[in-house]
Amino acid sequence: MTDTDEWPVRDSVTEYETGWYDGGYDLVEQPDGSEKRYYWAELPPAVVIVARTDDELLFVEQYRPAIRETHLELPAGIVEDGESYTEAAARELEEETGFAPSNLAVLQEYWVATGVLRHERAVVYADGLEPGERALDTNEFIEVRTVPVEDALEVAREGSANDATINGLLLATEDGLL
Amino acid sequence: MTDTDEWPVRDSVTEYETGWYDGGYDLVEQPDGSEKRYYWAELPPAVVIVARTDDELLFVEQYRPAIRETHLELPAGIVEDGESYTEAAARELEEETGFAPSNLAVLQEYWVATGVLRHERAVVYADGLEPGERALDTNEFIEVRTVPVEDALEVAREGSANDATINGLLLATEDGLL
Repeated sequence: MTDTDEWPVRDSVTEYETGWYDGGYDLVEQPDGSEKRYYWAELPPAVVIVARTDDELLFVEQYRPAIRETHLELPAGIVEDGESYTEAAARELEEETGFAPSNLAVLQEYWVATGVLRHERAVVYADGLEPGERALDTNEFIEVRTVPVEDALEVAREGSANDATINGLLLATEDGLL
Repeated sequence: MTDTDEWPVRDSVTEYETGWYDGGYDLVEQPDGSEKRYYWAELPPAVVIVARTDDELLFVEQYRPAIRETHLELPAGIVEDGESYTEAAARELEEETGFAPSNLAVLQEYWVATGVLRHERAVVYADGLEPGERALDTNEFIEVRTVPVEDALEVAREGSANDATINGLLLATEDGLL
């Protein structure tokens, strides 16, 4: 990816604060001199975890109210203030699944849905899983599942799929980890 | 992915209409009987196009005001009312790059950023490219580039990356098309 000079931002306004994401716009001067409002929704960074134990991967089954569907997906969560991606991955994995990883590696960082979101995500690979302490937040309703490595991508791609799980599995495969 | 019974939606409220996306919440009854507002940002479906001509792929270099960066990325756009994913892919590819594809195939549909977005995306593969008519919208500032197939994933993963380009390339590779 390349970086060029930023278009001049004449104003940046947050209009919608939900406690989960912020909505607003930047008033931007475009290359032809015209001004336009570009709307965004801003969310803190997230981490998606590809956690392997022997020949299986840890998945979670979780209801996603935004789309009104239950997905079988890779564990994921929001990075808290001051955390690195690997710290967030270790915490989220243990909270959601009860397994604490010994080894963690960031496979890729990327921006998500750049046409609308101001939101980064990292895919983190984890192994050396040891029993830890599961600690779901109030209002977290998550079932832990295991999926054989050889079946994981097919499971992720069938039916109603999600971007984070497919991308995480493909990146881990590309990097020779699955 | 699995589908289970939807959690009861007590109310669904659109609070923020931008003309680009809508923001709002569903008031949902959770499995323990408690009620909670789940906030979402809703955007029409999008299509990302992996367009191959001989040993090169078509990329576009585009400034992304939401994140204030220029990305070298796969062509993409919003699906218009009544369009299929392949129709939208053919239209967007020709508008953005001036090439009209003879063959199109949907590789994968998936939900994007399901923790916050109500937004679907398809990855479409295109080849048999013929000269067509480029037709950028007013305020579209896009440069067409070609990237050798063998370099594309590295280009997509280096620096400030985006999810759609990485996922599109990895899916086309997984499906034996790159």
